[in-house]
Amino acid sequence: MSSESAFIESLRALATHPSARGLNDDVAILKVGGETLILTHDTMVEEVHFLANQDMADIAWKLVATNLSDLAAKGAKPLGVLLSYTLGADDARFVAGLKDVLEFYSVILLGGDTVSGSGARTFGMTAIGTATHTPIPSRNGAKPDDRLFITGPVGAAMIGFETLRDRGATLGAAETAAFCRPIPLLAEGQALAPVVTAIMDVSDGLLLDCSRLAKASGVTIDVDTASVPIAAPDCRRDDAIRWGDDYQLLFTANQNTKLPVPAHAIGTVSTLGGSSLLIDGKPPKDGDTLGYSH
Amino acid sequence: MSSESAFIESLRALATHPSARGLNDDVAILKVGGETLILTHDTMVEEVHFLANQDMADIAWKLVATNLSDLAAKGAKPLGVLLSYTLGADDARFVAGLKDVLEFYSVILLGGDTVSGSGARTFGMTAIGTATHTPIPSRNGAKPDDRLFITGPVGAAMIGFETLRDRGATLGAAETAAFCRPIPLLAEGQALAPVVTAIMDVSDGLLLDCSRLAKASGVTIDVDTASVPIAAPDCRRDDAIRWGDDYQLLFTANQNTKLPVPAHAIGTVSTLGGSSLLIDGKPPKDGDTLGYSH
Repeated sequence: MSSESAFIESLRALATHPSARGLNDDVAILKVGGETLILTHDTMVEEVHFLANQDMADIAWKLVATNLSDLAAKGAKPLGVLLSYTLGADDARFVAGLKDVLEFYSVILLGGDTVSGSGARTFGMTAIGTATHTPIPSRNGAKPDDRLFITGPVGAAMIGFETLRDRGATLGAAETAAFCRPIPLLAEGQALAPVVTAIMDVSDGLLLDCSRLAKASGVTIDVDTASVPIAAPDCRRDDAIRWGDDYQLLFTANQNTKLPVPAHAIGTVSTLGGSSLLIDGKPPKDGDTLGYSH
Repeated sequence: MSSESAFIESLRALATHPSARGLNDDVAILKVGGETLILTHDTMVEEVHFLANQDMADIAWKLVATNLSDLAAKGAKPLGVLLSYTLGADDARFVAGLKDVLEFYSVILLGGDTVSGSGARTFGMTAIGTATHTPIPSRNGAKPDDRLFITGPVGAAMIGFETLRDRGATLGAAETAAFCRPIPLLAEGQALAPVVTAIMDVSDGLLLDCSRLAKASGVTIDVDTASVPIAAPDCRRDDAIRWGDDYQLLFTANQNTKLPVPAHAIGTVSTLGGSSLLIDGKPPKDGDTLGYSH
């Protein structure tokens, strides 16, 4: 177990309240008055989660978008966000991008804190929303004989990242938009919440997230890689299904469920066998990381 | 105007919703499901807000305590916190301190995010609570002829910081406790909320915070420095009233109000004159920073 895993496990030991599920890979759920609140926090660090030469407007967009994607996967309607911001270069561009994304999603900047700092800049965001459907869907409800779906292609963010890394930033370029300005699927999440058996957003790589969903549900998921829609050359399929940042919704549903949004069937669910994840019928090879662990 | 002020002003221009008051020096207020939520976010940066050689258990305590103090100043009851944590040395000590403070205040760790990073470590926390009294008291309701009060002495954190800086950490030492493990005055805030005209916690220096309260209320506040209780040698009085981190509650109340908690009368409120702050009847001298601006 890495020191990071050990730390997270020790935090989990503190987070014993039923509301306290929101550590790293899930959201917190809090019943207040007659509403069910969903809370999530994501932190982005320079050179870990983004490149130092990226447009700060895109960083602002992505910080909000990744948090809203966590809400989307719960079928939640966003209420507002709180920002933690390390002051530095291009603060005006950050504000411009923040304005864009908050207006685009009609989300309120509720507050936050700005700090001075040196070294790698760190940006944090807490997003708060209300559930539109209870029980709130989670990643642990997949059942044997369900089918596995994804809302759209993966790989566009990977191509966008590589374009940005290799050719530099071109403001607003279509090739980099999927990486720089991802679109959280809020409407799709709200439509899917009542009908799915399990759901999560794909942030760290499709195969890794399939594995997490399978483990959380106590089932085996078999991904049919050829049927995964990808937005990348077909020779990059193996990479695309291990790359994150596309923020599609991954979900399972009963075979007879009529889906309210377009989605692609990409696998099957069965009772737990020797491996919680199968790739085209076979367990992952040793050393296959399946995705990106931040 | 510094670039930090300019940035914060541009953020404020985005935060136009009535709920969106929670930037840097105030909290956000959100009505949800019949309850009024109070949300706040504070960020601490290594070597800016704490010393690199401090016990990480104390950092965890202070991170929670400063956020709870923001809730205390609104008379709120805390529900839970979300943590943003940069992994590094002494993670186990951080968890130990976090456990202490969460148990002490019966607060839930709802979730958060852990990240890897280099350089100065950054820790963020969002705290969420519910109002116990509406309208929620703010810093902008002080009225001419009110009196100015503080719940207890300032200066103990200053002495604690200097002890720590000059003599190094001595785990649990009484001399450093006020700096390392401040006590947010939650019960006092809840008791005061219905009776004060304005209230805030003293986090950045008594005189600076008096000035902020006066400006927010559109009045002049005259601080009688000799009557400010201090927990420091009397020769340090001028420093103690400019030093933050004590987290006492500063408030104004009508002269006839019977106070529900012990408090010290330290000044008077009058209609706005030439200076929003008077120190023993005189405007601050040029270059007097009044406190610590992070």
